[in-house]
Amino acid sequence: MNGSKETVTVIGLGVIGGSYATALKKLGYTVYGADCDEDTVKKAKERGIVDDAATLADAFLPLSDIVVIALYPKQVEGELRRIAHLLKDGAILTDVAGIKSHFTEKIESLLPENADFVFAHPMAGREKKGIDYADDRVFKDANFIITPSERNKKSSLDTIERLAREMGFKNVMRLSPEDHDKVISFVSQLPHAIAVALVNSDDRQFDTPRFVGDSYRDLTRIANINEKLWSELFLGNKNNLLASIKEFEKYLDIIKKALENDDKAALEDEFVRATKRRTEFNKEL
Amino acid sequence: MNGSKETVTVIGLGVIGGSYATALKKLGYTVYGADCDEDTVKKAKERGIVDDAATLADAFLPLSDIVVIALYPKQVEGELRRIAHLLKDGAILTDVAGIKSHFTEKIESLLPENADFVFAHPMAGREKKGIDYADDRVFKDANFIITPSERNKKSSLDTIERLAREMGFKNVMRLSPEDHDKVISFVSQLPHAIAVALVNSDDRQFDTPRFVGDSYRDLTRIANINEKLWSELFLGNKNNLLASIKEFEKYLDIIKKALENDDKAALEDEFVRATKRRTEFNKEL
Repeated sequence: MNGSKETVTVIGLGVIGGSYATALKKLGYTVYGADCDEDTVKKAKERGIVDDAATLADAFLPLSDIVVIALYPKQVEGELRRIAHLLKDGAILTDVAGIKSHFTEKIESLLPENADFVFAHPMAGREKKGIDYADDRVFKDANFIITPSERNKKSSLDTIERLAREMGFKNVMRLSPEDHDKVISFVSQLPHAIAVALVNSDDRQFDTPRFVGDSYRDLTRIANINEKLWSELFLGNKNNLLASIKEFEKYLDIIKKALENDDKAALEDEFVRATKRRTEFNKEL
Repeated sequence: MNGSKETVTVIGLGVIGGSYATALKKLGYTVYGADCDEDTVKKAKERGIVDDAATLADAFLPLSDIVVIALYPKQVEGELRRIAHLLKDGAILTDVAGIKSHFTEKIESLLPENADFVFAHPMAGREKKGIDYADDRVFKDANFIITPSERNKKSSLDTIERLAREMGFKNVMRLSPEDHDKVISFVSQLPHAIAVALVNSDDRQFDTPRFVGDSYRDLTRIANINEKLWSELFLGNKNNLLASIKEFEKYLDIIKKALENDDKAALEDEFVRATKRRTEFNKEL
């Protein structure tokens, strides 16, 4: 590397991979891109978010110090099997998958000896999919989780953390894969399940959009959801997500019971607790 | 009135009443304000959002063509009993309450013969309470519901609709009190119940704020809630709200069942339906 910036290949130029490429190119890295969709490859080149791109990463890999696999979780293994023998000696790989348990060990077993895989979850995204919605501004001040494994070198972890900070992420946290999946089931998957159920439970007796305020709009924005990706994320974390849903239902039940019993004090208690938590929360952010 | 703008008294200078006063004063109306809190009266005068203010509206009422009662729903009846004999001949009254059934008939029975009460619900607000958070910009492009009664004169309904449009509201709809309460239980009260339950169901095993993305932030913003007002609104609409919660739970159950059965197709169906609805919704707004 001789003090100059690393060369990075981004595999998968969808909304997240495309945003990685955009951010890293702006930062002065040499960036190669690969995507199975020819139209995406063409757009990436035309828009100058990569130095070069192709439908397969093969030609770029022997030159790349860092490889970002920005595919759906289930595709990562297959792609790694295909490319493992092409990796540069000492390459650092990373991913963007929203679930981590039952995933990392299998992936690591496929790595050549002198390659290191740093599992990461950039907590930023958009409701839309595809390169047309790639936008590195979504990384600004967002959260980034790394789930270190025993096999990881400290220098590899530090490299991916540095990359995240350079791209604009603010909090970079390190968690075990198990803790990652627990916390994600609550802060990300449960809200998506709620938004979907809320929109679908509309009996449409009235023309809903004409009656909504900001609250309904805010709560349902993420009901616009990529069904292939999110069904994979939900099922890949089903036990944690089921536990989070059940815990949520317990507190919704408290509100229901208070309504049924005309128990104003119980309702107020729930509202006061929620307000206190949400206000502390604002201070911390 | 002789072609000039009407004189309006706003009773209750909290976040909504204060916003009404601010908007109407800017529009050139003569605006008087009343609030039981002396500090609020002082602020309203200092900030020039009223022509005059006092702790009681009594002196202003004989001069006022329009009276906005911006109090909590349960306070409206008591205030009307107190002021009914002071109203100007031909006065139009209006309210801002978020529930309408079991409310309008009682109120109307208290009115002097030549006064008309137009029940209205401005669907705009802020999480904070009090005059310090009054801001007429929240009315811009918001929705406004009028629930006409048989007693209402057409001219009174048109006056309040005109006022709403002048203040910036975009959709002004007319609904029966019963339909209003049904639609509100879904688009406003259910989202608040969900946000409160979501925040309260956090087991806080992790430092949540460091792990959230926009989705959790958006879904919980309204968990910061005025407990006195909202417990009143919830209990005043309990049957509709309970029905909305139960309908929502049905759709959350579909997601739970799909998870338990590893049924990817069922999950995808729910996500596709939600995405389709939420996308149409964007087009309509």
